[in-house]
Amino acid sequence: MSQYWTDIVHQLNPYVPGEQPQDMQYIKLNTNENPYPPSPSILKVVESFPIDTLRRYPDPESTDLANSLASYHGLKTNQVFIGNGSDEVLAHSFQAFFKQSKPLLFPDISYSFYPVYCGLYQIDYKTIPLDDDFCVTLEQYAQPNGGVIIPNPNAPTGIALGLDAIETILKNTNSVVIIDEAYVDYDAESAIRLINQYPNLLVIQTFSKSRSLAGLRLGYALGNADLIEGLNRVKNSFNSYPIDSIASAVAIASIEDEAYFQQCREQVIASRDWLNQALVELAFKVLPSSSNFLLAEHQSALAQTLYTELRKLGILVRHFKTKRIDNYLRISIGTDKECRALITALKSIL
Amino acid sequence: MSQYWTDIVHQLNPYVPGEQPQDMQYIKLNTNENPYPPSPSILKVVESFPIDTLRRYPDPESTDLANSLASYHGLKTNQVFIGNGSDEVLAHSFQAFFKQSKPLLFPDISYSFYPVYCGLYQIDYKTIPLDDDFCVTLEQYAQPNGGVIIPNPNAPTGIALGLDAIETILKNTNSVVIIDEAYVDYDAESAIRLINQYPNLLVIQTFSKSRSLAGLRLGYALGNADLIEGLNRVKNSFNSYPIDSIASAVAIASIEDEAYFQQCREQVIASRDWLNQALVELAFKVLPSSSNFLLAEHQSALAQTLYTELRKLGILVRHFKTKRIDNYLRISIGTDKECRALITALKSIL
Repeated sequence: MSQYWTDIVHQLNPYVPGEQPQDMQYIKLNTNENPYPPSPSILKVVESFPIDTLRRYPDPESTDLANSLASYHGLKTNQVFIGNGSDEVLAHSFQAFFKQSKPLLFPDISYSFYPVYCGLYQIDYKTIPLDDDFCVTLEQYAQPNGGVIIPNPNAPTGIALGLDAIETILKNTNSVVIIDEAYVDYDAESAIRLINQYPNLLVIQTFSKSRSLAGLRLGYALGNADLIEGLNRVKNSFNSYPIDSIASAVAIASIEDEAYFQQCREQVIASRDWLNQALVELAFKVLPSSSNFLLAEHQSALAQTLYTELRKLGILVRHFKTKRIDNYLRISIGTDKECRALITALKSIL
Repeated sequence: MSQYWTDIVHQLNPYVPGEQPQDMQYIKLNTNENPYPPSPSILKVVESFPIDTLRRYPDPESTDLANSLASYHGLKTNQVFIGNGSDEVLAHSFQAFFKQSKPLLFPDISYSFYPVYCGLYQIDYKTIPLDDDFCVTLEQYAQPNGGVIIPNPNAPTGIALGLDAIETILKNTNSVVIIDEAYVDYDAESAIRLINQYPNLLVIQTFSKSRSLAGLRLGYALGNADLIEGLNRVKNSFNSYPIDSIASAVAIASIEDEAYFQQCREQVIASRDWLNQALVELAFKVLPSSSNFLLAEHQSALAQTLYTELRKLGILVRHFKTKRIDNYLRISIGTDKECRALITALKSIL
């Protein structure tokens, strides 16, 4: 607390990212990072980057990257907005669309950054409970609202909605609906193909998970041109040049290496299915995941205990002290070797 | 305009960055970029960057870079806040400190992003006129206020205040005073040494100008630990990981190459002094600059005409359509060769 802070800053309850400890080498299964490196093609891009050009500001519109994303997703360039990680894209979106007289709606168990953005921008919100199986229920999103945001697949449950469900939500509101697809590449269906039908749909994706570029901070939104223009108005009132020149060049190279992208994606899905089964055999209840993580509860051992014991053994997983899931662990999918190490460690603890 | 935008987005009047045209090669003297490349030592850092690690999120606190900046400036690490360019640092600062019941004060001629931030965060502000010589006047900053922000040297005038003047402003208010030192390395005195005396002082600097790293997006704030904590609360409610891993490593290498930094800085100052004199000889009135640009008005030719004619000759300068300076050109200092080309072009136009 400080006399210099504004009222909003005093009231903020900032997001707490998964720990990134520097004290030793952990098997990091706590922040949903990709266990595989980014496309080998980016090595050349980085190595040969003309560093003299860094004295220049980057293109404020990141036009080349926007063109590349538009073409990859079958959209027009004016349907693409790029930000410094999808968290920044989300922040701008909350400010651009969700401060309304009616409340924003999102699931009670969901990305824990959403209520933080609401605090930052003083947005009224209402959470809609997931059902007993942790699935998104549709009916309540039809109530009067100032916007809807749903991660698909949801985090930290990993459970995906079908496009028919997304359409039901879109049809029942005139507000902006954001589908936050951070994890969509791990088996869920993207809502991108609904964009030209629904002017109120914004889809947000990231380079941090399936493209192994969390370290470079790149996310983007896809939607109707006037939603994108709204985001640009906010961005150009905040920071004209959010995307650095190296990041932009690397991201384009990543998009161009489709084969590698598919290969890593499939490998993570295969490891997830193996780990899911192995956890079930150790008496875990595992939610059906379409993402690169599993949310799992042990029949008898406490999540807090398992988290602590795993940490001692050099394995980090994530434990949210959130109602209804406070006895679950969220486990990011590692390499097969890391997944096996986790199972071995769990066996020794249990 | 769109039914989906919030009221704030409708009212925004976004910042317009200097043009970055892609149609041809210009002599770019319009965005205050450094004419010299960044330190050669960063080449090795970029070339040998372990790209495999990009799959990981960066350190959310950018601890290594914060330590490096703290040590360079003789402060503690908890007195340093790092952002994705100083524009982002400014944006967070406006939100963290300036939304108050009393108005924020800044000069009427100043960085044109300030009123934009005020629009974004609904901050009440009042501009204080520069005097007839375009100098900051001190008296009016003593009136009741919710904060003060002054670029030093001021932009786009280039004129610097002495530390005694900064202290006068600090002594006359209990609000946060931000000294925006984007251009301080070109001959002005930094207020950093006042930080431990004035808990309400925040100094903001950038890697974009004197460190030739505009393309990498790095800026920082230095101040009392609880101001920095306020900024961290906002940042952690907006984007946990604003600084990418490559940018962070490059910035550290830049700080370590002090000799190169000094050499480029001095070369720009020498070129500025030469260009100043050459413009005077062409009948320009040139404001006394402590920055890497000159604000200059011709005795008879109109700024708009000169801007247009220079553009046709492949030279970009900046022309602000702002009252009192709408007949001035802001000219960034280029290499000696670029400065000479500008003078040759101006001679041919005049």
